Amino acid sequence: MLKKLTAEFIGTFWLVLGGCGSAVFAAAFPELGIGFLGVALAFGLTVVTMAYAIGHISGCHLNPAVSFGLWAGGRFPTAELIPYMLVQVAGGIVGAYVIYIIASGAPGFDLAGGLASNGYGDHSPGGYDMLSGFITEVLMTFMFLIVIMGATHKLASPGMAGLAIGLALTLIHLISIPITNTSVNPARSTGPALLVGDWAMAQLWMFWVAPLIGAFIAGVVYRWLSPNED
Amino acid sequence: MLKKLTAEFIGTFWLVLGGCGSAVFAAAFPELGIGFLGVALAFGLTVVTMAYAIGHISGCHLNPAVSFGLWAGGRFPTAELIPYMLVQVAGGIVGAYVIYIIASGAPGFDLAGGLASNGYGDHSPGGYDMLSGFITEVLMTFMFLIVIMGATHKLASPGMAGLAIGLALTLIHLISIPITNTSVNPARSTGPALLVGDWAMAQLWMFWVAPLIGAFIAGVVYRWLSPNED
Amino acid sequence: MLKKLTAEFIGTFWLVLGGCGSAVFAAAFPELGIGFLGVALAFGLTVVTMAYAIGHISGCHLNPAVSFGLWAGGRFPTAELIPYMLVQVAGGIVGAYVIYIIASGAPGFDLAGGLASNGYGDHSPGGYDMLSGFITEVLMTFMFLIVIMGATHKLASPGMAGLAIGLALTLIHLISIPITNTSVNPARSTGPALLVGDWAMAQLWMFWVAPLIGAFIAGVVYRWLSPNED
Amino acid sequence: MLKKLTAEFIGTFWLVLGGCGSAVFAAAFPELGIGFLGVALAFGLTVVTMAYAIGHISGCHLNPAVSFGLWAGGRFPTAELIPYMLVQVAGGIVGAYVIYIIASGAPGFDLAGGLASNGYGDHSPGGYDMLSGFITEVLMTFMFLIVIMGATHKLASPGMAGLAIGLALTLIHLISIPITNTSVNPARSTGPALLVGDWAMAQLWMFWVAPLIGAFIAGVVYRWLSPNED
Repeated sequence: MLKKLTAEFIGTFWLVLGGCGSAVFAAAFPELGIGFLGVALAFGLTVVTMAYAIGHISGCHLNPAVSFGLWAGGRFPTAELIPYMLVQVAGGIVGAYVIYIIASGAPGFDLAGGLASNGYGDHSPGGYDMLSGFITEVLMTFMFLIVIMGATHKLASPGMAGLAIGLALTLIHLISIPITNTSVNPARSTGPALLVGDWAMAQLWMFWVAPLIGAFIAGVVYRWLSPNED
Repeated sequence: MLKKLTAEFIGTFWLVLGGCGSAVFAAAFPELGIGFLGVALAFGLTVVTMAYAIGHISGCHLNPAVSFGLWAGGRFPTAELIPYMLVQVAGGIVGAYVIYIIASGAPGFDLAGGLASNGYGDHSPGGYDMLSGFITEVLMTFMFLIVIMGATHKLASPGMAGLAIGLALTLIHLISIPITNTSVNPARSTGPALLVGDWAMAQLWMFWVAPLIGAFIAGVVYRWLSPNED
Repeated sequence: MLKKLTAEFIGTFWLVLGGCGSAVFAAAFPELGIGFLGVALAFGLTVVTMAYAIGHISGCHLNPAVSFGLWAGGRFPTAELIPYMLVQVAGGIVGAYVIYIIASGAPGFDLAGGLASNGYGDHSPGGYDMLSGFITEVLMTFMFLIVIMGATHKLASPGMAGLAIGLALTLIHLISIPITNTSVNPARSTGPALLVGDWAMAQLWMFWVAPLIGAFIAGVVYRWLSPNED
Repeated sequence: MLKKLTAEFIGTFWLVLGGCGSAVFAAAFPELGIGFLGVALAFGLTVVTMAYAIGHISGCHLNPAVSFGLWAGGRFPTAELIPYMLVQVAGGIVGAYVIYIIASGAPGFDLAGGLASNGYGDHSPGGYDMLSGFITEVLMTFMFLIVIMGATHKLASPGMAGLAIGLALTLIHLISIPITNTSVNPARSTGPALLVGDWAMAQLWMFWVAPLIGAFIAGVVYRWLSPNED
């Protein structure tokens, strides 16, 4: 269990460092920046790389909503749910803190830039309101869990699950960065919000509630759609 | 059969929400937008992710032209053709409607922007005329079905079909977004057209006729090229 | 043999239509264009998609230099070399012609834009001279064949060859579009050159000579590096 | 052993030619340039393509830090460590020299542009200081080796290792090009630095020390996390 939790900690650390880090360091670099497309790819690749690195150790959830949805879908034991969620959040916090340390070494760094925090209304990149943000986070997490439940189903191609799931996260970011900066992952939202405080903390509730709702529904729906007859 | 149709509905919903949604929300975001490249990737990834999520349930067609071409190629039973096409169109309509709801939550949203509808002539992104659009849609759907028939052939690598087919859709968008905004999928075209009405409805015929022609020819050609001796 | 040649014809047609077509239609689209990155991806994906679609029919060479290099490496029979090369060139010509027809349907199309022809000196996108172009084409084709020989070696992962080889072509374009517009494929160069004529025909020799040299050396080197003991 | 060393030489040559070459030739091309995103993809694809081409010959390290980390993790014999590192550095130097030769054939080429050398402080693309650079290189190499150790573990999907490892390098570049121009590979840093001299040589120490530290820690950590019970 210690090894599983260590793997989840490292993996979620990597998801935040890689995903939010690419947004903070590289997205808006003059002329050569990677934009939302590069950030979407970075988030997805944190999952792809970890899936093959630690998938056989911990299952590579890296996300409280994923652990919760898999539990709702009958794929994850109740006893491990809370410990997984705790180390995922811890990994996300440390990841955000490391971004802060590295970013502090550049001229003109300002924490008010937001460390890629999630938000809605005035803090949505494209100014989308709370309702749009909520619907988006529920739907995106729902579809994310459908892909996860399906790609790890025993009838799916076993070696391809990590790639499909990571690319699902890339796709989700391609759609929804302008709306909420894309969470679908409470641990990813909590890390930067703790450092930025203020509005990011005030809006953090949505990035726990909406992903958990979407994940729960997906777990139940997929269980009906394609039962796992182990 | 209910589960198959549910899977096709969810999958086509995802194709339109992800593909057209990324175009509406993220393509032209100032400075950081994902452009046609990001939209092409998003369309392809909707197919990649669904292929591994629901491929073992419904075959993951997500497209009336795909179902029709597979039927023409002797790979899909006649009895399932119409039900599949109906739920695909339904999924596309719901997908477009959800984009509309989310987009309405942003300042300055205007339905006249087109919800990523397909078009030719004055409504082609690059101003390509009807004949260019028609040839392009026939050819692109023809090649799409050649890839689908080939990658799911029993002599091809089984686990890679979903990736190859999804990336084929990405490639098709890289080529032809400027020409027709890329359909190759009547369900994807119908959803946004119903909401936009007007010119989008008036031009919708092409995005049924041309893909179905291309798919039919591909089904027949591939069947000759590489018979499936089951 | 007829089916093999048909497959190679369709595949090379697709390589030119997809690769050069994405360059002509989409690379420089205002604001949203796919740029060299998108074109590089498109070229690679033509190979990825065809590898899984027709690989089990013809081997999916799509390139006279590939057929020649595989022959030099002891992997392709002498009797099939010339027929393969001929249909590949034919496919490339038809692909270029279809691009021309489609492009003619847009306002302001001008054949002098070059249809993505290859060139050096004044006709290199970045103004690279003949020697730089020649070295680049030899080296890139050499490395392309090393990847092809290696990824299709019996000790390599069988299902991944198509992906690795297609992504090698993407990589080659990421490096060398500014230098020669990237050929490494005489059939891809011949199609557009025949339509553009003029300078494109005058410089076409290099895009036959350099790729064939690079491919031949790679075939011989890899054969020594990792003998295929069938 | 000669074949192994030849394979590592060719592979590291390709890593520098492809990665640094795409940066020098194509990253900042007017309007159509590939940017940091394209360079990140190019670096990753050099590893993906070589993994399938020479993985079964030499293991495809292409990086002294990788060989060192695998040795620390008990996966690579002591006797081969120094020879591997030497040919990797040689391959990197030849790769950088070939970039120089090709680039010299373009108008206005200036070696002071840096040949994509790594740097910190005034020579960091985004002006990040030495400490940020050092932390970044240690962490990125640490995570790179975690992915390598994990994806090549006997419980992981064997065919996917090359893809996962190459995409890890892409991800690392998406995050850290603005900080140090991304090394995580002493051979990749040494080649350009020898040609540029001056500041690039003066800062080269960091791109040996930091990657070797990160790789060593990862080897030890992963060995504890998931023992290889061969």
